[in-house]
Amino acid sequence: MGKKVKTAITPTREEDYPQWYQEVVKASDMSENSPVRGCMVIKPWGFAIWENIQREMDAMFKETGVKNAYFPLFIPLSYLEKEAEHVEGFAKECAVVTHHKLEKADEGGLKPAGELAEPLIVRPTSETIIGESMSKWTSSYRDLPILLNQWANVVRWEMRTRMFLRTSEFLWQEGHTAHATKEEAVERTLQMLDLYTKFVEEQLAMPVVRGQKSESERFPGADDTTCIEAMMQDKRALQAGTSHFLGQHFAKGSDITFQNEAGEEAYAWTTSWGTSTRMIGGMIMVHSDDDGLVVPPRVAPAHVVILPIIKKGGDNTEVMESALALKAALREKVYHGRVVEVEIDDRDIGGARGWDWVKRGIPVRIELGPRDIANNSVFMARRDTNKKAGMDRDEFVNTITDILDDIQNTLFQRALKYREDNTFSIDDKDEFYALYKKAKGYNNGAFVMSHWCGSGKCEEKIKKDLSVTIRCIPFDSPEEQGACICCGEKSEKRVLFAKAY
Amino acid sequence: MGKKVKTAITPTREEDYPQWYQEVVKASDMSENSPVRGCMVIKPWGFAIWENIQREMDAMFKETGVKNAYFPLFIPLSYLEKEAEHVEGFAKECAVVTHHKLEKADEGGLKPAGELAEPLIVRPTSETIIGESMSKWTSSYRDLPILLNQWANVVRWEMRTRMFLRTSEFLWQEGHTAHATKEEAVERTLQMLDLYTKFVEEQLAMPVVRGQKSESERFPGADDTTCIEAMMQDKRALQAGTSHFLGQHFAKGSDITFQNEAGEEAYAWTTSWGTSTRMIGGMIMVHSDDDGLVVPPRVAPAHVVILPIIKKGGDNTEVMESALALKAALREKVYHGRVVEVEIDDRDIGGARGWDWVKRGIPVRIELGPRDIANNSVFMARRDTNKKAGMDRDEFVNTITDILDDIQNTLFQRALKYREDNTFSIDDKDEFYALYKKAKGYNNGAFVMSHWCGSGKCEEKIKKDLSVTIRCIPFDSPEEQGACICCGEKSEKRVLFAKAY
Repeated sequence: MGKKVKTAITPTREEDYPQWYQEVVKASDMSENSPVRGCMVIKPWGFAIWENIQREMDAMFKETGVKNAYFPLFIPLSYLEKEAEHVEGFAKECAVVTHHKLEKADEGGLKPAGELAEPLIVRPTSETIIGESMSKWTSSYRDLPILLNQWANVVRWEMRTRMFLRTSEFLWQEGHTAHATKEEAVERTLQMLDLYTKFVEEQLAMPVVRGQKSESERFPGADDTTCIEAMMQDKRALQAGTSHFLGQHFAKGSDITFQNEAGEEAYAWTTSWGTSTRMIGGMIMVHSDDDGLVVPPRVAPAHVVILPIIKKGGDNTEVMESALALKAALREKVYHGRVVEVEIDDRDIGGARGWDWVKRGIPVRIELGPRDIANNSVFMARRDTNKKAGMDRDEFVNTITDILDDIQNTLFQRALKYREDNTFSIDDKDEFYALYKKAKGYNNGAFVMSHWCGSGKCEEKIKKDLSVTIRCIPFDSPEEQGACICCGEKSEKRVLFAKAY
Repeated sequence: MGKKVKTAITPTREEDYPQWYQEVVKASDMSENSPVRGCMVIKPWGFAIWENIQREMDAMFKETGVKNAYFPLFIPLSYLEKEAEHVEGFAKECAVVTHHKLEKADEGGLKPAGELAEPLIVRPTSETIIGESMSKWTSSYRDLPILLNQWANVVRWEMRTRMFLRTSEFLWQEGHTAHATKEEAVERTLQMLDLYTKFVEEQLAMPVVRGQKSESERFPGADDTTCIEAMMQDKRALQAGTSHFLGQHFAKGSDITFQNEAGEEAYAWTTSWGTSTRMIGGMIMVHSDDDGLVVPPRVAPAHVVILPIIKKGGDNTEVMESALALKAALREKVYHGRVVEVEIDDRDIGGARGWDWVKRGIPVRIELGPRDIANNSVFMARRDTNKKAGMDRDEFVNTITDILDDIQNTLFQRALKYREDNTFSIDDKDEFYALYKKAKGYNNGAFVMSHWCGSGKCEEKIKKDLSVTIRCIPFDSPEEQGACICCGEKSEKRVLFAKAY
């Protein structure tokens, strides 16, 4: 029996995956629970990742003609009532504002006062309130398309929360578009899903499966929901983004009409699409290890940390100057539109210093001591492989962007291989059930491609028996004759089954 | 009597300044009222201005070591109760969440359900909730300073609202810092006020007076509130930003303690500072005219609009190609870190097209027809001066950034002159009263520098008699013997009086 290797995170992934996740988040200094039930505090290291996501994604939106706007936080109760399916989906879990001031309570302290004539809902999503505006803005086909996005906080009351993955308040972007034709709206739905795919794969280094949701998993009120699904290390699926074709459903609810080219009054066709801070939860679970967070360079708050070797009570001028010079040289390099960001950590706290940066997942760590300076070398550690080696200092500076690209690519390829190694085609019901029945903890099954007849009953039975759901009907699933994994009826496509977050 | 000149905005500033403001906002397509009481919809043209403000200010914050973070939208009622003064200031006007779901009402429709054990307040500002986190993060002097900023939405229930100037929900940034010493916290308070001054003057072209608030105008719970005040065209003051030195008051309320270098337990010294979408209201009122919005180039959503002269039913290929080539040439120029942004408007709607862009305040309009193309010229109109002239096309492209700088500077200098022309030193009480008693509508008095004894009674009397307040005790007001404008007691400084937004 080998000696147990000490890891920076306790427990390890295998020992207790959910707890490992919480400890990684905590140790990385990304966020913490707040005193407000279900809400988290996003600390600077975590928020900088969100800012990097925002900046890049926002630029991609704008390239497709989308413009940002801002709509009210509050939605009148009557607006939710307009959309029967919509409210069924959100009424169970929303924050309701009923008063507009506080007054002194008889028993001391304060109590709500000034009851509102109509309660307001803190937005769980903004289809209804944006629909109201679109209705005003649309009179002719010339006013279409309307292509909007909003970066905002939304609230969906949650009883069981996990930082980044499921919180009562979360940050997201929600895109909303209105079009003159069905074709254009369908095209926009897929265009945004493609954009999300590109973003998540290239920036977060998370490979995804693209597809369509089954009817039961659709957004409330949507004609069609498309999504991207990523595999976490425990082999569960995480939905990293959705893009909805809403048909004329919301246009009818919000009266978004226009005069078409033939001079007839018509309803617009709308879409909505969103991604959230949940992506960060996915990023953590895909790449991190038993030593803590691993952040892909493209979204890392900083790329390199320099750890000068400080002599207690000695003269550290030379090493500090050398560290500053190295930082300056690195910051002259541009990595995908961003300056190479460098931290210098000169805290005198021994080995804990290096571990802090391992746990924060910074892509590259550099140790720099008098001997390195004399040799014009650096001692480099990569967070992705944990490989450490001495390196010529000039070469390091000149190849830093290549090193970062290599880290980014290594993370993506590793995640892709992991998913491929854990994706199976299964045609036998017993085999399917056996696989998921033994699934638990870190080893949470697999992605399974199986035939499905299309019936909600079969879907429901599998969900009830195994807590396994149809994550999506993948776009690249070939037409193929087969038998439903549940009822044996004929099927023409395999769909993706998995346990999910 | 001269002929009445037709203006794009009705009424004019002189006719009805408040109504003029609303019409300018509406005609510029910046925002509109929403169906939610007191909340507005910020449309793409308005939101792009806020994005430009955010990007620039955020970079300035980060240069001073500030990092962004995100704290919960909701604040438990008990947190507000901790801060007696604080709650006095905000309890009158806050949105209170009392329930966490909806259920079917007997009379049909939905009603609030799931009453919360403790009501939650939608943040009016985040001192108390951020204080809670700082308390956890601070154990040693080595953990200080903590320099945080948050871009967020906040809610202060308002009965009378005006778009951008006063809305129940608004967007802002709130900075919060904690320091080991009083000196450092005071220095940070002023550093951020300087940053705001630089930002508002350079980006929004709004000259400001910097100073300290009197006790009655301080932020609830602050030891000292500093501010910047700008003069609107109706001669009222608008507070464009505040920076508060909070002493140890909030540190005591939130228990932000640390071990100092001597090993003793001490309370931290904190600051907070904020600016909001209100700045946009100020920008509108300082620069706009009777033809609509005027946007300073540094924050303009787009810098140039090209209006190709289109022949109905004719072949417009050449003019459209020429417009696209001009756009491409302009977009190769960089104006203060941003590509020169160009719109092409080829709508066939006659003269309304040009007026739309006047009303939207775009800095430069270019008309481009076959004759211009033949002559390699453009016909340019500047929004700041409304001057129009033909110009060599290459020269226009090569000097566009100079033209934009000149517009920016013209706007600032004009606003500065206007303020100087309308700022008076008054030592006679009757004169002071006479000036403000006749103030109304567009001609709302002036900035008046008068002596004040420092008593809250005199301040209160003037406020009651004239609706005039002490906007600030300007930092550059010289030491000077004088008599209080209200009571005649001795005074050593002039303070700035004005009617205010």
